[in-house]
Amino acid sequence: MITVLSGGVGAARLLRALSDVVHPREITAVVNVGDDLVLNGLTICPDLDTITYTLAGLNNDELGWGLSGESWRVMDELEQLGGASWFRLGDRDLATHLYRSQRLSEGATKSQVTAELCTHHGLAIRVLPVTDDEVATQFDTDLGRLNFQEYFVRHHHDVKVTAIDIVGAGEARATDEVIDSLVSASRIVIAPSNPLISIDPILRVGGVREVLERRRDDVVAVSPIIDGRALKGPADRLLADLGHEVSCVGVVDFYKGLVGTWIIDEADASRADVIRSRGVKVIVTTTIMADAQNAERLAHAVIS
Amino acid sequence: MITVLSGGVGAARLLRALSDVVHPREITAVVNVGDDLVLNGLTICPDLDTITYTLAGLNNDELGWGLSGESWRVMDELEQLGGASWFRLGDRDLATHLYRSQRLSEGATKSQVTAELCTHHGLAIRVLPVTDDEVATQFDTDLGRLNFQEYFVRHHHDVKVTAIDIVGAGEARATDEVIDSLVSASRIVIAPSNPLISIDPILRVGGVREVLERRRDDVVAVSPIIDGRALKGPADRLLADLGHEVSCVGVVDFYKGLVGTWIIDEADASRADVIRSRGVKVIVTTTIMADAQNAERLAHAVIS
Repeated sequence: MITVLSGGVGAARLLRALSDVVHPREITAVVNVGDDLVLNGLTICPDLDTITYTLAGLNNDELGWGLSGESWRVMDELEQLGGASWFRLGDRDLATHLYRSQRLSEGATKSQVTAELCTHHGLAIRVLPVTDDEVATQFDTDLGRLNFQEYFVRHHHDVKVTAIDIVGAGEARATDEVIDSLVSASRIVIAPSNPLISIDPILRVGGVREVLERRRDDVVAVSPIIDGRALKGPADRLLADLGHEVSCVGVVDFYKGLVGTWIIDEADASRADVIRSRGVKVIVTTTIMADAQNAERLAHAVIS
Repeated sequence: MITVLSGGVGAARLLRALSDVVHPREITAVVNVGDDLVLNGLTICPDLDTITYTLAGLNNDELGWGLSGESWRVMDELEQLGGASWFRLGDRDLATHLYRSQRLSEGATKSQVTAELCTHHGLAIRVLPVTDDEVATQFDTDLGRLNFQEYFVRHHHDVKVTAIDIVGAGEARATDEVIDSLVSASRIVIAPSNPLISIDPILRVGGVREVLERRRDDVVAVSPIIDGRALKGPADRLLADLGHEVSCVGVVDFYKGLVGTWIIDEADASRADVIRSRGVKVIVTTTIMADAQNAERLAHAVIS
């Protein structure tokens, strides 16, 4: 059994690659909920949806988010009404949010709703929100405090960040399913998601960090920084803004005490010895999942 | 200035007819909110929307509700997900509900949101929800207690009703705008909407009935029952279920003490004297707004 701490796109790709080399029923994704939001009355869980859509083969590769074959009738109308249309919700995608919002209002937990959506999409991988409690990643910036999607989507993460606050994480508890999956997994994987805003909001939820510290030898992490840059998103910029080294070494230090084995890209092979000096194992391989072959190679490295 | 107590479709047609014979700026609609609901996370106000859409010329004549040129992409997806798709929300219509839900979550009142939507649609008629407080019309039935849309849409009002409960009406207060419009109107009109489930939930909101009692001589009502039948909807069946006479006389008695002048249909001309014996004036005319000419005739009767 493999449990993967997961953000959105990068994690989804790794999960898809893993499910080609081990049976999907042996994989559990523990997913960030810090960028979840309530907008236009609807509870939206971007990371959970990205993972579900990607594993169901329904992801929109062109956009890099959302569903394939999407249409925008509702958003076009909402824009005409002068509504909150900066966070684009496609017509197909909206059905997910309507479904989730209704089920939550009926008393279902986010975990239950996620399981229902996974069943609907025929997924064999188990997808678990890290917690059913409220967690909200917020940013202190030049423009004042922003919630996740204001920072990420509305301002295209093009704003200087002075601090990140995972509001509610201190009081939130990981679900029993999450803790069980972490405790019983033969391997815990940290996906190449943004360390500061995808993985840290998982680690800060009550119960998670303690298990990883205890199981450090079984924890494998894939560096999201390659040759000093993030493949996607603002991880590099955020590391710099918050005083971390913008390199795979910076990420190794950020996850200090939690990871037994690091997988870094060939482009960073020269940093392997520095990382080993931190007392961890290092595997050097191609970490960019540009094609199926590379993805499979990375998946094999993760489970090796 | 004319103020019209309004339910949905019947009231919308009368308002449209009135705005052809007096300037729309002189008309205020005070609208029922007892059938409002929160579904799929969204706050939906069917009567307010029917009136707004109809006055904007955007109503779907084919369906009898919703918007013209509608599409159903979101509902089709939601149905596939096994979600709550029995209450059909078109893609264009959804934008209204997303807009409203977002504005309410930002702290706007239902009155403010309604005004914004009316401005967007370029309406000159003033449309006011009777209250910004929560009011919910519920039904005791053979199937147990049902909320409005469960009764009306889900079960197609094809169920025996033993009692109607306007939950929250006792504590709700009419808005200041509503009271002002009732106090200052030269004429108060009760639209030919369902007396029990469209108009009564307005009358029961704190402040409304008192003004009508005081201004009874200036109150004109159009009978929604013609020749013992409702043109549309379950008004006739509900009157019978709840022990009222199923006729224009039954409605006259239901509104006892509130109406100075009754407008009844030519089909009920033989009941005019019975109604006059209740101490009210009676105008007999065509009340079915089947075409523009009839609608105009009714509008003239209302303002005469």
